[in-house]
Amino acid sequence: MVRLLVLYNKPNDAEAFHKHFDEVVAPLAKKMPGVRRYTVSRDVMPSQSGEPYYMVAEIDWDDMESLKRDFESPEGKAAAVEAAKVSEMSPGTRSMIYEFVEV
Amino acid sequence: MVRLLVLYNKPNDAEAFHKHFDEVVAPLAKKMPGVRRYTVSRDVMPSQSGEPYYMVAEIDWDDMESLKRDFESPEGKAAAVEAAKVSEMSPGTRSMIYEFVEV
Repeated sequence: MVRLLVLYNKPNDAEAFHKHFDEVVAPLAKKMPGVRRYTVSRDVMPSQSGEPYYMVAEIDWDDMESLKRDFESPEGKAAAVEAAKVSEMSPGTRSMIYEFVEV
Repeated sequence: MVRLLVLYNKPNDAEAFHKHFDEVVAPLAKKMPGVRRYTVSRDVMPSQSGEPYYMVAEIDWDDMESLKRDFESPEGKAAAVEAAKVSEMSPGTRSMIYEFVEV
Protein backbone atom coordinates (compact mmCIF):
# COMPACT_ATOMS: atom_id res chain seq x y z
CA MET A 1 0.00 0.00 0.00
CA VAL A 2 1.05 3.58 -0.65
CA ARG A 3 0.08 6.56 1.50
CA LEU A 4 0.00 10.31 1.02
CA LEU A 5 0.36 11.86 4.47
CA VAL A 6 -0.38 15.56 4.96
CA LEU A 7 0.47 17.24 8.27
CA TYR A 8 -1.20 20.59 8.87
CA ASN A 9 -0.23 23.24 11.39
CA LYS A 10 -2.79 25.52 13.00
CA PRO A 11 -4.20 27.68 10.21
CA ASN A 12 -4.31 31.44 10.44
CA ASP A 13 -8.02 31.39 9.58
CA ALA A 14 -9.42 28.08 10.82
CA GLU A 15 -12.91 28.68 9.47
CA ALA A 16 -11.71 29.39 5.92
CA PHE A 17 -9.25 26.49 6.11
CA HIS A 18 -11.83 23.88 7.14
CA LYS A 19 -14.46 25.25 4.77
CA HIS A 20 -12.16 24.99 1.75
CA PHE A 21 -10.89 21.59 2.85
CA ASP A 22 -14.33 20.10 3.51
CA GLU A 23 -16.21 21.66 0.63
CA VAL A 24 -13.61 21.65 -2.12
CA VAL A 25 -10.48 19.56 -1.46
CA ALA A 26 -12.03 16.47 0.13
CA PRO A 27 -14.82 16.03 -2.44
CA LEU A 28 -12.29 16.38 -5.30
CA ALA A 29 -9.78 14.02 -3.73
CA LYS A 30 -12.46 11.41 -3.13
CA LYS A 31 -13.25 11.39 -6.84
CA MET A 32 -9.85 9.91 -7.70
CA PRO A 33 -10.74 6.38 -8.77
CA GLY A 34 -7.79 4.56 -7.18
CA VAL A 35 -8.26 5.87 -3.63
CA ARG A 36 -8.70 2.99 -1.18
CA ARG A 37 -9.08 5.00 2.01
CA TYR A 38 -9.17 8.70 2.79
CA THR A 39 -9.13 9.78 6.42
CA VAL A 40 -8.93 13.13 8.15
CA SER A 41 -8.11 13.47 11.84
CA ARG A 42 -8.85 16.71 13.66
CA ASP A 43 -8.52 15.82 17.30
CA VAL A 44 -4.79 15.12 17.40
CA MET A 45 -3.33 14.56 20.85
CA PRO A 46 0.30 14.68 21.97
CA SER A 47 2.18 11.48 22.69
CA GLN A 48 5.74 10.89 23.88
CA SER A 49 7.70 13.30 21.68
CA GLY A 50 7.16 16.84 20.46
CA GLU A 51 4.01 18.69 19.51
CA PRO A 52 1.11 17.12 17.63
CA TYR A 53 0.13 18.57 14.28
CA TYR A 54 -3.21 20.39 14.06
CA MET A 55 -4.75 18.04 11.50
CA VAL A 56 -3.64 14.87 9.71
CA ALA A 57 -4.98 13.76 6.31
CA GLU A 58 -4.11 10.37 4.82
CA ILE A 59 -4.97 8.92 1.44
CA ASP A 60 -4.14 5.30 0.61
CA TRP A 61 -3.68 3.58 -2.75
CA ASP A 62 -2.89 0.00 -3.65
CA ASP A 63 0.47 0.89 -5.16
CA MET A 64 2.60 3.68 -6.60
CA GLU A 65 1.22 3.11 -10.10
CA SER A 66 -2.33 3.77 -8.90
CA LEU A 67 -1.25 6.92 -7.08
CA LYS A 68 0.56 8.24 -10.17
CA ARG A 69 -2.41 7.45 -12.40
CA ASP A 70 -4.72 9.34 -10.04
CA PHE A 71 -2.36 12.32 -9.72
CA GLU A 72 -2.36 12.65 -13.51
CA SER A 73 -6.15 12.36 -13.80
CA PRO A 74 -8.36 15.47 -14.16
CA GLU A 75 -9.70 14.86 -10.62
CA GLY A 76 -6.19 14.55 -9.22
CA LYS A 77 -4.94 17.70 -10.92
CA ALA A 78 -7.95 19.67 -9.70
CA ALA A 79 -7.52 18.32 -6.16
CA ALA A 80 -3.82 19.28 -6.16
CA VAL A 81 -4.59 22.89 -7.13
CA GLU A 82 -7.14 23.22 -4.33
CA ALA A 83 -4.99 21.32 -1.81
CA ALA A 84 -2.18 23.82 -2.43
CA LYS A 85 -4.54 26.63 -1.40
CA VAL A 86 -5.38 24.85 1.84
CA SER A 87 -1.69 24.23 2.55
CA GLU A 88 -1.00 27.94 2.10
CA MET A 89 -3.56 28.65 4.83
CA SER A 90 -1.59 26.38 7.20
CA PRO A 91 2.03 27.62 7.29
CA GLY A 92 4.52 24.79 7.59
CA THR A 93 2.30 22.09 6.10
CA ARG A 94 4.34 18.98 5.28
CA SER A 95 3.21 16.30 2.87
CA MET A 96 4.95 13.09 1.90
CA ILE A 97 4.41 9.78 0.11
CA TYR A 98 5.59 6.34 1.16
CA GLU A 99 4.94 2.67 0.80
CA PHE A 100 3.98 1.01 4.03
CA VAL A 101 4.38 -2.59 5.00
CA GLU A 102 3.64 -4.35 8.25
CA VAL A 103 6.59 -5.09 10.47
CA MET B 1 -9.67 3.21 14.69
CA VAL B 2 -6.95 4.97 16.65
CA ARG B 3 -3.43 5.61 15.42
CA LEU B 4 -0.11 6.43 17.02
CA LEU B 5 1.94 8.29 14.42
CA VAL B 6 5.66 8.82 14.98
CA LEU B 7 7.61 11.11 12.65
CA TYR B 8 11.38 10.73 12.78
CA ASN B 9 14.00 13.15 11.52
CA LYS B 10 17.33 11.98 10.19
CA PRO B 11 19.19 10.43 13.12
CA ASN B 12 22.69 11.46 14.06
CA ASP B 13 23.78 7.83 13.99
CA ALA B 14 21.58 6.01 11.49
CA GLU B 15 23.06 2.60 12.15
CA ALA B 16 22.47 2.75 15.92
CA PHE B 17 19.00 4.23 15.37
CA HIS B 18 17.81 1.48 13.01
CA LYS B 19 19.45 -1.25 15.04
CA HIS B 20 17.72 -0.21 18.26
CA PHE B 21 14.42 0.33 16.45
CA ASP B 22 14.47 -2.99 14.59
CA GLU B 23 15.90 -5.17 17.32
CA VAL B 24 14.33 -3.70 20.45
CA VAL B 25 11.46 -1.24 19.88
CA ALA B 26 9.58 -3.00 17.08
CA PRO B 27 9.62 -6.47 18.70
CA LEU B 28 8.39 -4.99 22.01
CA ALA B 29 5.70 -2.86 20.37
CA LYS B 30 4.42 -5.84 18.39
CA LYS B 31 3.86 -7.74 21.62
CA MET B 32 1.11 -5.35 22.73
CA PRO B 33 -2.00 -7.50 22.38
CA GLY B 34 -4.36 -4.83 21.01
CA VAL B 35 -2.20 -3.76 18.05
CA ARG B 36 -4.11 -4.20 14.78
CA ARG B 37 -1.43 -2.97 12.39
CA TYR B 38 2.12 -1.75 12.83
CA THR B 39 3.91 -0.28 9.83
CA VAL B 40 7.25 1.41 9.34
CA SER B 41 8.08 3.42 6.23
CA ARG B 42 11.69 4.22 5.42
CA ASP B 43 11.58 5.43 1.85
CA VAL B 44 9.64 8.64 2.38
CA MET B 45 9.36 10.89 -0.66
CA PRO B 46 8.43 14.57 -0.84
CA SER B 47 5.02 15.60 -2.09
CA GLN B 48 3.46 19.02 -2.58
CA SER B 49 4.44 20.78 0.65
CA GLY B 50 7.57 20.91 2.77
CA GLU B 51 10.17 18.28 3.53
CA PRO B 52 9.36 14.61 4.12
CA TYR B 53 10.29 13.08 7.45
CA TYR B 54 13.10 10.50 7.48
CA MET B 55 10.94 7.63 8.76
CA VAL B 56 7.27 7.18 9.64
CA ALA B 57 5.98 4.58 12.13
CA GLU B 58 2.27 3.94 12.62
CA ILE B 59 0.50 1.67 15.09
CA ASP B 60 -3.26 1.16 14.88
CA TRP B 61 -5.72 0.02 17.55
CA ASP B 62 -9.45 -0.57 17.40
CA ASP B 63 -10.22 2.25 19.81
CA MET B 64 -8.76 4.51 22.51
CA GLU B 65 -9.56 1.99 25.25
CA SER B 66 -7.42 -0.66 23.56
CA LEU B 67 -4.55 1.79 23.13
CA LYS B 68 -4.69 2.82 26.80
CA ARG B 69 -4.84 -0.79 27.94
CA ASP B 70 -1.77 -1.61 25.85
CA PHE B 71 0.15 1.47 27.04
CA GLU B 72 -0.40 0.35 30.62
CA SER B 73 0.64 -3.26 29.95
CA PRO B 74 4.17 -4.49 30.75
CA GLU B 75 4.89 -4.76 27.01
CA GLY B 76 3.65 -1.22 26.43
CA LYS B 77 5.68 0.26 29.25
CA ALA B 78 8.83 -1.52 28.09
CA ALA B 79 8.24 -0.38 24.50
CA ALA B 80 7.78 3.23 25.64
CA VAL B 81 11.12 3.23 27.49
CA GLU B 82 12.96 1.91 24.45
CA ALA B 83 11.03 4.12 22.00
CA ALA B 84 12.14 7.16 23.99
CA LYS B 85 15.78 6.15 23.41
CA VAL B 86 15.17 5.91 19.67
CA SER B 87 13.46 9.31 19.65
CA GLU B 88 16.47 10.83 21.39
CA MET B 89 18.64 9.57 18.53
CA SER B 90 16.40 11.46 16.07
CA PRO B 91 16.26 15.12 17.17
CA GLY B 92 12.84 16.69 16.57
CA THR B 93 10.87 13.45 16.59
CA ARG B 94 7.14 14.16 16.81
CA SER B 95 4.58 11.61 17.94
CA MET B 96 0.82 11.99 18.21
CA ILE B 97 -2.37 10.00 18.68
CA TYR B 98 -5.69 10.44 16.89
CA GLU B 99 -8.86 8.69 15.92
CA PHE B 100 -9.29 8.38 12.18
CA VAL B 101 -12.49 8.01 10.24
CA GLU B 102 -13.09 7.89 6.52
CA VAL B 103 -14.34 11.07 4.88
